[in-house]
Amino acid sequence: MMKAIGADRAFQLSEGNLFYEFDKEKPTPKDKELLIKVKAISANPIDTKQRQRPIEQPPRILGYDAVGVVEATGDNCELYQVGDEVFYSGSLKFDGSNAEYQTMDERYVATKPSNVSYTEAASLPLTSITAYEVLFDIFNISTNPDNNKGKTLLIINGAGGVGSIATQIAKAYGLKVVTTAGREETKAWSEKMGADLVINYKEDMKAQLESNNVKDIDFIFCTFDTDLYYETMIDLVKARGTLATIVAFNEKQDLNLLKGKSLTFGHENMFARSLNNIDVIQYHRYLTDVSKKVEAGVYQPTVTKVFDELTPETLFEAHQLLEDHVMKGKIVFDMES
Amino acid sequence: MMKAIGADRAFQLSEGNLFYEFDKEKPTPKDKELLIKVKAISANPIDTKQRQRPIEQPPRILGYDAVGVVEATGDNCELYQVGDEVFYSGSLKFDGSNAEYQTMDERYVATKPSNVSYTEAASLPLTSITAYEVLFDIFNISTNPDNNKGKTLLIINGAGGVGSIATQIAKAYGLKVVTTAGREETKAWSEKMGADLVINYKEDMKAQLESNNVKDIDFIFCTFDTDLYYETMIDLVKARGTLATIVAFNEKQDLNLLKGKSLTFGHENMFARSLNNIDVIQYHRYLTDVSKKVEAGVYQPTVTKVFDELTPETLFEAHQLLEDHVMKGKIVFDMES
Repeated sequence: MMKAIGADRAFQLSEGNLFYEFDKEKPTPKDKELLIKVKAISANPIDTKQRQRPIEQPPRILGYDAVGVVEATGDNCELYQVGDEVFYSGSLKFDGSNAEYQTMDERYVATKPSNVSYTEAASLPLTSITAYEVLFDIFNISTNPDNNKGKTLLIINGAGGVGSIATQIAKAYGLKVVTTAGREETKAWSEKMGADLVINYKEDMKAQLESNNVKDIDFIFCTFDTDLYYETMIDLVKARGTLATIVAFNEKQDLNLLKGKSLTFGHENMFARSLNNIDVIQYHRYLTDVSKKVEAGVYQPTVTKVFDELTPETLFEAHQLLEDHVMKGKIVFDMES
Repeated sequence: MMKAIGADRAFQLSEGNLFYEFDKEKPTPKDKELLIKVKAISANPIDTKQRQRPIEQPPRILGYDAVGVVEATGDNCELYQVGDEVFYSGSLKFDGSNAEYQTMDERYVATKPSNVSYTEAASLPLTSITAYEVLFDIFNISTNPDNNKGKTLLIINGAGGVGSIATQIAKAYGLKVVTTAGREETKAWSEKMGADLVINYKEDMKAQLESNNVKDIDFIFCTFDTDLYYETMIDLVKARGTLATIVAFNEKQDLNLLKGKSLTFGHENMFARSLNNIDVIQYHRYLTDVSKKVEAGVYQPTVTKVFDELTPETLFEAHQLLEDHVMKGKIVFDMES
């Protein structure tokens, strides 16, 4: 048996904490699955969104970032073996990582970077895969940094979880990175992540870009309120540029606004490969690159808040922090205690 | 002096023919401009749309496809000289090609393919540039056909002007091409253009794809009524695929529909480079590739209707044909008579 944290129905935080701990049969890995003893996890905005969606088979276990050690392997595993330390985001198709053990398809995981702690590594998978997909699959930047020189990326909300690692990845691959932030604290954090320029979204963004001699923006990545920024992004990006978002819209939009500059718009969803069962080995490839670049000192973990244990109470608190939109970087949980 | 055809105000075809012929000073080429004696032109749906837009300086000369001979050059021309035969689409920024002479920035033109007539060459520039931009700038296909093998493009309305050349270009660059058509005549034409499979848009498209063993569609290019096909395209394309259109929407759309499969949507506008003054040499590059591939016998002109002369009456008739949506291929005008 193993312990897990879940809820029996969708709930709002205003209803109180419906998360609870329960015992569950330890799963048996099949086919390409690894059984993983979870050592650290992270919480992401997707957890708060999933928490509010109807549950098919209660209790539902959330959690889409984990680091752990392989304890057993399915019959068709080829990439990993017992004892390997791995990190991964997972999928909405599988039980989440808010548990002592989790099974995960080995094509979704990569070797944990050896030079960082479990909690540091836990801050990376979901946000990194998201950023890689936006950069390589939507913006189609080159894997050769030299080919990306001279191109500029604007990240809306640069200090957030995804913005923090996207900044580092974009810089490593040769882009110039401009981010937005609204407070001195988040501005300083985004600069620490490597942003070449941080502009204040509360002031005239176009004027700030002009006064800093940023003339052409090739790509804009929105990680906050896409309805609010839709027209602004269209105004700021150069002709034939590309926009991407990870935030669902609340309203229908006028797609003709893209026509004047012949723009392209991508709606990033890191679970799309998994949910549509397309090319899932790409998760392994992207995370392997993340792991190597962390070991080379190119990327740094984005942890800003560590909970010493995962309990229904600490999980609820993390959801509160995420919904308050006050976080910079990532919230992680140490599961080793 | 030279003759040109224009209109003094925006008009609907139901108002009667407001096009008229008038005399105008022959323009003098400046800077990078060529003065071109127009030998053949083509009419496109953009002409019918522009005809209905307000006019700033009447009379307005429409026309965005031409073939001609260079008669004079501006001081800073480097690519072409007097006597060269060129073809080009042009730009909404300049006077159109419905005239005896036209000036055009040399970065917008390429050498006319030597093995086809003026009228045949006139069928190609606007539609080819559009197709190249969709394929290379929105779908980001490789310039190496081997890298595109195994990828499939669906063209909505394969027998139209853009669909006809897009089919040939996509085939030349290694894609599998499926098109839609509704009549035996347009189906046969699309097959002649090189489509691997033509499906009937009046019947269940998904079932036809399945029965023809077309499993994954990587790219969909809509050249007809995007509102009508928006949800269909999202349904038919594979996860992480890309959609593009050249047809403006009439209604706002739900961009969240792109999220489940993490799709990208591009709104192609071949005048965007020109209107935003970005990278206009790309017109020359794309058309040069078209010219070489026509000379190599890889692309064939898409002419289906030739008017022996350009008059207010023949131009009006062409606008009627375009607005009736009955055309396959392209309408061209011989200006040599």
